[in-house]
Amino acid sequence: MLSKAIVKYVTSLQVKKYRNQHQAFVVEGAKSLLELLNSDFEIQHLFITQDFLQEHGNRLSKGTRYELVTEQDLTRAGTFSSNNAGLAVAHMHQLSKLQFHPGDFTLALDDIRDPGNMGTIIRIADWYGIQTIVCSETCADFYNPKTISATMGSFTRVKAYYLNLGEWLHQLPENVPVYGASLDGENLHRMQLQPTGVVVMGNEANGIRPEVASEVNRLIKIPAFGEAESLNVATATAIIIDNFMRNARL
Amino acid sequence: MLSKAIVKYVTSLQVKKYRNQHQAFVVEGAKSLLELLNSDFEIQHLFITQDFLQEHGNRLSKGTRYELVTEQDLTRAGTFSSNNAGLAVAHMHQLSKLQFHPGDFTLALDDIRDPGNMGTIIRIADWYGIQTIVCSETCADFYNPKTISATMGSFTRVKAYYLNLGEWLHQLPENVPVYGASLDGENLHRMQLQPTGVVVMGNEANGIRPEVASEVNRLIKIPAFGEAESLNVATATAIIIDNFMRNARL
Repeated sequence: MLSKAIVKYVTSLQVKKYRNQHQAFVVEGAKSLLELLNSDFEIQHLFITQDFLQEHGNRLSKGTRYELVTEQDLTRAGTFSSNNAGLAVAHMHQLSKLQFHPGDFTLALDDIRDPGNMGTIIRIADWYGIQTIVCSETCADFYNPKTISATMGSFTRVKAYYLNLGEWLHQLPENVPVYGASLDGENLHRMQLQPTGVVVMGNEANGIRPEVASEVNRLIKIPAFGEAESLNVATATAIIIDNFMRNARL
Repeated sequence: MLSKAIVKYVTSLQVKKYRNQHQAFVVEGAKSLLELLNSDFEIQHLFITQDFLQEHGNRLSKGTRYELVTEQDLTRAGTFSSNNAGLAVAHMHQLSKLQFHPGDFTLALDDIRDPGNMGTIIRIADWYGIQTIVCSETCADFYNPKTISATMGSFTRVKAYYLNLGEWLHQLPENVPVYGASLDGENLHRMQLQPTGVVVMGNEANGIRPEVASEVNRLIKIPAFGEAESLNVATATAIIIDNFMRNARL
C-alpha cells in the first residue's frame, strides 16, 4: 500500500506549481508507462500492479526499481478513475535551446488551453514526425496529467517550448512561411503546401490573438462542405498537417 | 429555482434507458442551445439565465416558453461543471427509413464507445456535409449529454442510425465501395479518392470487428511519418474524410 506521504507527493504533482518545484510529473496507464520505460526520461517512482508486472515485466530493464501496488492505490494517487496498470513519477526533461533551421517544419500553438486538446495535438505531431512544437505561455501545460494521458505516449518524442509566440515568430527570417488558419484563408485543398515553415493554430473560441496573427503571412482554411461553424482545434490541426505532409518528399 | 421533480427528471435523462423511455434528451450551453432553437427539434423545457436572455433573447421565437434560472440550477440539473447560459430538454427525432442511393457517401462507425469521440465525429461529418451516419449498436448513444455537447450543435443536422453494421453493409449493392482504415491499407495520399460509398471507422483499441471487416472491400491507411502507434479515432476520421472531400466535384 502506498504511504500517505507518497500519495500526497504524487497528487501534488497535479498542480503545475508543484510540478515545476519538483521538476517531476506523473504518467498513468499501461500504454503511457510502456512508452516511458522505453524513453530516456529518468523515473523517480514506479508503482505497478501484479497484472502489469506479469504482462510487461520483460519491458523493465534489469535493476529497475518498482513497488507493487493495488488498483485502489493507483486511483487514490492518480487522476484516472480506473487504472489496473501503474503510475510513474518521472523527471522533466531539460530542453536544449530552441533552434529553427531553414526548411524546418514546426507547429505553433497560440492559447490552446485545454490539456486534452494539447495532448491530442502532441500525438498528431508525433504521427507526422514533428518533434518540436512551440507554444504561447497561455497554452495548457505539457506535463499536465491530462495532457500526458492524451498524448498516448507521444510525450516521450515531442518537445514543447513555451515562449512569447508573437516575439518568437517576429525574429524568424523574413522568408520563413508562417501559416495561420482563418476563414478568410485560401482553400488548402487547392494549394500545393510544402512542409516547411510554421503552422499557427489558435484558440478555438477566439482564434489567433492579434499580436500573433500579425506575424502570420499566409492564411489558409479547411473548406467547409456543410454547416458546422468550426472544428475542434485538434481536429483542425490534424487536417491541416495532413495537407502539408501529403506533399512531403520522402 | 428549479423544483426537485424537474431536477430529478432532467438528471434521469443522463441515462439512456430513461432517455428512450421519455424520448427526450438534454442540451446544455449557449452554442448548443442556439443551434437547438434554430432547428426543428421540439423543445419540452427551456431553462435559461438572465444573461442568456439578454444576449440572445432575439433568437427566441415569439411565444417560446422559458423559465429563468440561476447557474446553480443549471449545474444541479445538468452535466456541465459550469453553465451560465441554459439547458433544454428536447424530444428525440423520429428517423425516417435509412436509405442508401448509388453515389451517396456515408460514414459507418463500428464500436466507437466514447461519447466525446462520437460527438466530435458528428461535428466532423457536419463540417464535410455528411448528414447521415450509420453506427453499430455498441457505439456511444447519439443523445448522451457528452455526445450532444461534443457535437457543438451539429446534432441538429446529422442523423445517426443504429443497426447491425455487418448485416447492413452486407446488403449493399456489390459495386458500392466500402473503405476501412487498416495498417495494411493503401496510402490515401497516393489515391484519388472519390466521396462515394461507405467509410468504416473502427474501435481505437481493437480496430474494425471481424464481422464488419469482412464487408470492407478497400483498405486504406493514413501514412505515418513519425513513431506514434495510432491516432485518436476522431482525428483519424477527420483526416480520412478530408482526403475524400478534397476531390469532391462541387
